[in-house]
Amino acid sequence: MITSPGNERIKSLVHIRQRAKARKDADVFLSEGIKMFLEAPEERIREVFLSESFSCPDKAVEDAVTEKLGRLSCETVSGNVFSKISDTCSPQGILCVMKSYHYSFSDLLRREYPLLLALEDIRDPGNLGTMIRTGEGAGIDGVILSGETVDIYNPKTIRATMGSIYRVPFYQTQNLQQTIADLQRHGIRVFAAHLDGETAYDACDYTGGCAFLIGNEAGGLKEETAATADCLMRIPMAGAVESLNAGIAAAVLMYEAARQRRNGK
Amino acid sequence: MITSPGNERIKSLVHIRQRAKARKDADVFLSEGIKMFLEAPEERIREVFLSESFSCPDKAVEDAVTEKLGRLSCETVSGNVFSKISDTCSPQGILCVMKSYHYSFSDLLRREYPLLLALEDIRDPGNLGTMIRTGEGAGIDGVILSGETVDIYNPKTIRATMGSIYRVPFYQTQNLQQTIADLQRHGIRVFAAHLDGETAYDACDYTGGCAFLIGNEAGGLKEETAATADCLMRIPMAGAVESLNAGIAAAVLMYEAARQRRNGK
Repeated sequence: MITSPGNERIKSLVHIRQRAKARKDADVFLSEGIKMFLEAPEERIREVFLSESFSCPDKAVEDAVTEKLGRLSCETVSGNVFSKISDTCSPQGILCVMKSYHYSFSDLLRREYPLLLALEDIRDPGNLGTMIRTGEGAGIDGVILSGETVDIYNPKTIRATMGSIYRVPFYQTQNLQQTIADLQRHGIRVFAAHLDGETAYDACDYTGGCAFLIGNEAGGLKEETAATADCLMRIPMAGAVESLNAGIAAAVLMYEAARQRRNGK
Repeated sequence: MITSPGNERIKSLVHIRQRAKARKDADVFLSEGIKMFLEAPEERIREVFLSESFSCPDKAVEDAVTEKLGRLSCETVSGNVFSKISDTCSPQGILCVMKSYHYSFSDLLRREYPLLLALEDIRDPGNLGTMIRTGEGAGIDGVILSGETVDIYNPKTIRATMGSIYRVPFYQTQNLQQTIADLQRHGIRVFAAHLDGETAYDACDYTGGCAFLIGNEAGGLKEETAATADCLMRIPMAGAVESLNAGIAAAVLMYEAARQRRNGK
């Protein structure tokens, strides 16, 4: 059992928890909690860290955890050490070091009519994670992330995905406008929610290949990015509301696309 | 200028910031930031506190702030004192003490076919505020809050409403099931998103009076509350997603109702 926070492996994990660069250099991310452990693809798990006080809420969960742990490399640490590597105030006492994903642009295009989410400079890690979770629920094929978007492997993002990080392809681009042009060349229509949009979002047809562009929480989409979209549309807002939360806007759009794909436009 | 955190008025404000009971006893809540100040109804503002370092991002905003401040009772405090009464890490330096709202059940029923949101035991203050903001955008008539729902006047909730707190009526009930029965007596159909729901949410008709029941983030709706609904429906989920974030589910439902009310079912 590791009991010293000064242990070299623990110090390295703390860096990985805190810094995107350390995660990138080590090509790993941290995934915490029982649900995240149970859903983690085994071939990606490098190591599992357990707190000495780890316990499960019920017998069925405990059996599933024990069975999976038996096939993995596992290290027990003291409660004090676990609190250093954990990102939460009330840790569940189980944390995986996972090998990072490396998707290519073509991984977004596996279906004939892909449904995609393209995010420009999203800053809130929880918001990003929630969008990935909602996206999986709505049946998207992948997420495109601009260079200034918060690191997808931020522990708060991972947690907010509730496991969707393991299943939704994502593609990081240093040139979002170029990537939008690439989408368009593959026949994908790009829709941007925008205050200048004249068409209501529910008047557009999302049954073909399409991507939704969502801008930064505070400033919205950059003008030059919005200009690349095939269509600017608006989400009608009653009352005195000027805009919706970025994660909420993404959810409304993705679920409208899912509705049309189920029921027809 | 107040420079001592030990000042009695400041100590009282800190309590009001931190405790729901103190807000209730004083019948006030705190509303922070420039946008929240500019949107605040003047007749509800009891006092304004300004940090000595307060400044506006641009001249137009500054003019609007100065003009409104001229009609109000205002106190300047040191930066150190402001950080005590502020709930944020990077305060904008302006905070209002506002008189609390007291709506009655009938305030929810001002329109012939109300659209309502009924929340059971929502715990995350930011999530609650976002739901109120989204609700205003979708055109709801009001929000019903169960007794165990987080205090609507929590500073994080107020901030997340982005001003909708001033405009969306809300009704707090100690007996949600009784309130649901009251809604039904007024001809309002009550819909609950539920894992057991057989009807897809977009197959239901929301053009009449209706209310959406949303449960606690971790546990969902209580069984006995779900049992009171006129209809259990489900939000279809692709992939391995078990549920959506409560605020996301509420947004998808409210915007589907808004869509139907605009376009017809």
